[in-house]
Amino acid sequence: MTTQRLTSESFRTWLDGLDAVLFDCDGVLWRGKTAISGAKEAVELLRSLGKRVVFVTNNSTTSRANYVKKLVSMGIPAVAEDIVTSAWATVQYMKKQGIQGKVYMVGETGLDDELRDGGYEPSGLTDGDRRANPIPSGIDQDTQAVVVGLDRDISYYKLAYATACIREIPGCRFIATNPDQTYPLDGAITPGGGCFVQFIEAAVGHPPEAVIGKPSQDLLQTVLSTFNLDPARTCMVGDRLSTDIEFGRRGGLHTLLVLSGITQEHELSKIKEPMQVPDFYIDSVDVLNHFHSEIK
Amino acid sequence: MTTQRLTSESFRTWLDGLDAVLFDCDGVLWRGKTAISGAKEAVELLRSLGKRVVFVTNNSTTSRANYVKKLVSMGIPAVAEDIVTSAWATVQYMKKQGIQGKVYMVGETGLDDELRDGGYEPSGLTDGDRRANPIPSGIDQDTQAVVVGLDRDISYYKLAYATACIREIPGCRFIATNPDQTYPLDGAITPGGGCFVQFIEAAVGHPPEAVIGKPSQDLLQTVLSTFNLDPARTCMVGDRLSTDIEFGRRGGLHTLLVLSGITQEHELSKIKEPMQVPDFYIDSVDVLNHFHSEIK
Repeated sequence: MTTQRLTSESFRTWLDGLDAVLFDCDGVLWRGKTAISGAKEAVELLRSLGKRVVFVTNNSTTSRANYVKKLVSMGIPAVAEDIVTSAWATVQYMKKQGIQGKVYMVGETGLDDELRDGGYEPSGLTDGDRRANPIPSGIDQDTQAVVVGLDRDISYYKLAYATACIREIPGCRFIATNPDQTYPLDGAITPGGGCFVQFIEAAVGHPPEAVIGKPSQDLLQTVLSTFNLDPARTCMVGDRLSTDIEFGRRGGLHTLLVLSGITQEHELSKIKEPMQVPDFYIDSVDVLNHFHSEIK
Repeated sequence: MTTQRLTSESFRTWLDGLDAVLFDCDGVLWRGKTAISGAKEAVELLRSLGKRVVFVTNNSTTSRANYVKKLVSMGIPAVAEDIVTSAWATVQYMKKQGIQGKVYMVGETGLDDELRDGGYEPSGLTDGDRRANPIPSGIDQDTQAVVVGLDRDISYYKLAYATACIREIPGCRFIATNPDQTYPLDGAITPGGGCFVQFIEAAVGHPPEAVIGKPSQDLLQTVLSTFNLDPARTCMVGDRLSTDIEFGRRGGLHTLLVLSGITQEHELSKIKEPMQVPDFYIDSVDVLNHFHSEIK
């Protein structure tokens, strides 16, 4: 099974087959702080054609409120209810599981915000400062879960504290926000939340009970039911084969890869996992605008 | 195949079969800052019986010079040539591989010291301070290798810098000092060098070319030739099945597990890897002193 470049001919069929489009953000609509050319117009176009647009990101470091700000600053009108982040989805998972109370977090403000909004008592946000005190002397035995995501203020203290909670507190849960091992940032490829999960997994000797972000099919079901979407008439647009494309393919969605993020064209002929082969690919979302102006 | 407790009867046969004893240190002679009772006397006993004693540790954070100080402070006479650390062994490996020049290091002062002693130009030691600057803007393109071990002053900057060197510099080597996923410290189990290796492995997408510490058989050959030892008359004494015992078993050494470190007695009946079953086990090295006083 191979993928193919979307053409102006296949574009029309693709478009007619859709009621909704799920957009990954980083590498699709922007890269780091830089908007990808045509992103605003592509979202506008799809909305003007009556397609429901939802933003689905594995980024756990930014709250939905801040995503709204970022989208609006790019000229894309949005409200929190248009946005699914792995931090928000982690809180939904925890609520469904009946987890309550104190949580230790390897993560940043976005995760802290979403946990607080969800009624949890997170700690760990400022523990990056406790570098000179590498050994947790007395962990909080009431900690119900450890949530692990990208944390650019990481310290050994935090990693050791998270490890101690999972190893020593009976019943303490271990939940990962997302599996991404890298993310593109200002031209570089830097370590993602999945690296932190691998670290803690090695330290505690077992994997997390759940990895919340894409390609989780639990998350897909949450998205489909929250937005009342028909998978056969929904397309996932993303830049990453192992999260975005697999997320869509496993759930029976259409899939469209953009080459504006982490995946490069030469990789497309070497995909080993059939569920990671996108239906179509394009250079960037701007191609959708060009195709539409051609067929108008 | 099962292990058995060393008895005063089997002790004599065990002792007569040996010319040399390799001691792991942490969990065997001390735990963190606390000496294990009888450790000094056990080393003294073996030396007085003409056994060559060598200290072989996967710890990469302390130089051999500092190991000498620690052993001497415990009343155990030692010189640098009695000691094999994973940091020192990493430098031996790099020299054998013909690696020269600049090295980026995820590690602590012991590794920095050994690299400098070996003629390398390591950097990274103080990069833990660069927390507010998470993205390496311009890595040193002359970096020949990235060496990864335990680093309790870790920052995202260091992890991202190491990742960028391996991903972006053609031919840049990726070497791990040791595979230990945890180590015992003052009653807690905390993340070890192997967790940092897992992190970088996830971020760069491939494992290191070599993991230097125990159970590496390259290291065993280096030890045997450096000290001119006969494997059939050498015993590895350690607290960890997956490093110490496997190291010895694979190399044809005798093996003795102590229960004063990371391994607990109830785990002994559940060992799945035949190469991790020790010949004998004892509660701690102090048992050797008791057996010897019984048979005198």
